[in-house]
Amino acid sequence: MATRKVALAIDIGGTKMRGALITESGDVLARDDIPTQAAKGEPTAMKRLAALLRRMNTEVPDAEPVGIGMAIAGTVDPETGIFTNPPNLPNWHDTAPSLDLGELLGLPAWVHNDASLAALGEYEYGIGQGTKSLVMITLGTGVGGGLVLDGHLYGGYRGYAGEIGHLIVDKSGPLCPCGGRGHLEMMASGTACARIAKERLAAGEASLVTKLVRGDLEKVRAETLVKAEGLGDQLAGEVLRDAADYVGVAVATLRSVLDPELIVIGGGVSRNLHIFFPRLVASAKAHAMNVDKALCPVVPTVLGDDAGLLGAAALAWQKLRG
Amino acid sequence: MATRKVALAIDIGGTKMRGALITESGDVLARDDIPTQAAKGEPTAMKRLAALLRRMNTEVPDAEPVGIGMAIAGTVDPETGIFTNPPNLPNWHDTAPSLDLGELLGLPAWVHNDASLAALGEYEYGIGQGTKSLVMITLGTGVGGGLVLDGHLYGGYRGYAGEIGHLIVDKSGPLCPCGGRGHLEMMASGTACARIAKERLAAGEASLVTKLVRGDLEKVRAETLVKAEGLGDQLAGEVLRDAADYVGVAVATLRSVLDPELIVIGGGVSRNLHIFFPRLVASAKAHAMNVDKALCPVVPTVLGDDAGLLGAAALAWQKLRG
Repeated sequence: MATRKVALAIDIGGTKMRGALITESGDVLARDDIPTQAAKGEPTAMKRLAALLRRMNTEVPDAEPVGIGMAIAGTVDPETGIFTNPPNLPNWHDTAPSLDLGELLGLPAWVHNDASLAALGEYEYGIGQGTKSLVMITLGTGVGGGLVLDGHLYGGYRGYAGEIGHLIVDKSGPLCPCGGRGHLEMMASGTACARIAKERLAAGEASLVTKLVRGDLEKVRAETLVKAEGLGDQLAGEVLRDAADYVGVAVATLRSVLDPELIVIGGGVSRNLHIFFPRLVASAKAHAMNVDKALCPVVPTVLGDDAGLLGAAALAWQKLRG
Repeated sequence: MATRKVALAIDIGGTKMRGALITESGDVLARDDIPTQAAKGEPTAMKRLAALLRRMNTEVPDAEPVGIGMAIAGTVDPETGIFTNPPNLPNWHDTAPSLDLGELLGLPAWVHNDASLAALGEYEYGIGQGTKSLVMITLGTGVGGGLVLDGHLYGGYRGYAGEIGHLIVDKSGPLCPCGGRGHLEMMASGTACARIAKERLAAGEASLVTKLVRGDLEKVRAETLVKAEGLGDQLAGEVLRDAADYVGVAVATLRSVLDPELIVIGGGVSRNLHIFFPRLVASAKAHAMNVDKALCPVVPTVLGDDAGLLGAAALAWQKLRG
């Protein structure tokens, strides 16, 4: 029987693990997910994931897996595959999930940070097709990013490049859990928006948000603010638009430093871009050089939540092509 | 007679043009400079420069020029050689000095922005030898920069990458002549330091600076501040250290975004690094991620004012090697 070669694309997050069979041209032949159950440990998770992928393969019997690409939330060394101090998978510290999965399935495996692979996904199969370089900013619970320069993920000296959440947007801003100060993630992530709203509500400002969480401020999430903004709430709108302003600052800095062909905005926020995007672009233009104002190609993701998964496939295919 | 192959290295600034004969290993066999006399036009300047280089060659008769590398202050397209809206050489707009000089001397010629070539100079012949990537920040009258990534100058989509002077360090900072807001150059260049000091003096603050310029605030320069700081003046010290703080913010951002192996500080300020450097490093560490605090290799230039000239030679040699 003629077979179709596929990469096994994996996207591992704190709550679920997603798998897909993806051809070199980006066709997703099968996809599924299972809970991560991180607490049970990394070896158990990789065994369950291997079983899922084998089962998916039986459902597409002509698909022939030739390699594995894995996107994972946290700091991972692309050379050794070792995963370090992952905030969402703490007991996986110092494991190498990609190597373990590769061994279980008898396939070569490559791994990278999920935000970096989202950038590669957009470059290879998304809005960035045909460009030479792009920067991706993923806005969700946290803020991540990735750099594709001259067609390849740029990892930097230690594989940490693209930590756009830790770009400084306010010199005197609050301390970040990472130890730095004034980072974008502390001003514009979902978590940051919720924190800032809670601070303002606790200080006595009136807002529909209080009603939406029935007075329990601990329940305020970025989603609550989006809902309140949709109902015309002023405080929620301000918090979200302030966050967009800060992302615009980061966009302007990234343009000055890297002169990318495209800056792509993705992550969880992409579901609510109508609130966020116009303000972000206005802020980017206000802060950018004149030469960048006319040509400021900030664009939303087209792959949405699939960017990391498709990027994992793109990584495997790039490596397989050599 | 046995010959030694040399690159003709050129560094063109608003006031003088420097030339040197430089071997592939970075030995400077001859060097000289002449006034730019920019107002007489670019063709005249290139003819004078060609004559200078020919004369220098007669003094080192065994030197055989094989190519030209040119560093120039302003925006230049490395592909076409065309120079656009140069602030210090306004009537040279839309000329191609490197092509003209190459034609006069019958040699292949390449050109790049001077700050970018300072980065390449440090990489090839300076403090960056043996690294894979470095970022250069040049602090002088203005603020410039360059990126060497994986051994090559990274120019970005339009050749504008490395515009570190236009990285945003203060969202609400003053408007930059480039049209943007809050740029590093407006907070930390020599011009910015002088402006900030003048504003504070005009507002009535006491300082030795007023005495040093005999009451004529228009005469305040960065050098005046350096002199006053050396005499223990508080205002001058504050202005210079505030500038260093902002450069530290930029260093932290560049580490998060690019994870370079080295960040090199050069430009005119390198003559007064004792005032500037400790504060810069402290600010960079305060703003950086913990993972970057331990390893924050910000280092001063070793090539000083020659970084651009040696970078021009490095560019020519890289191109000649193909």
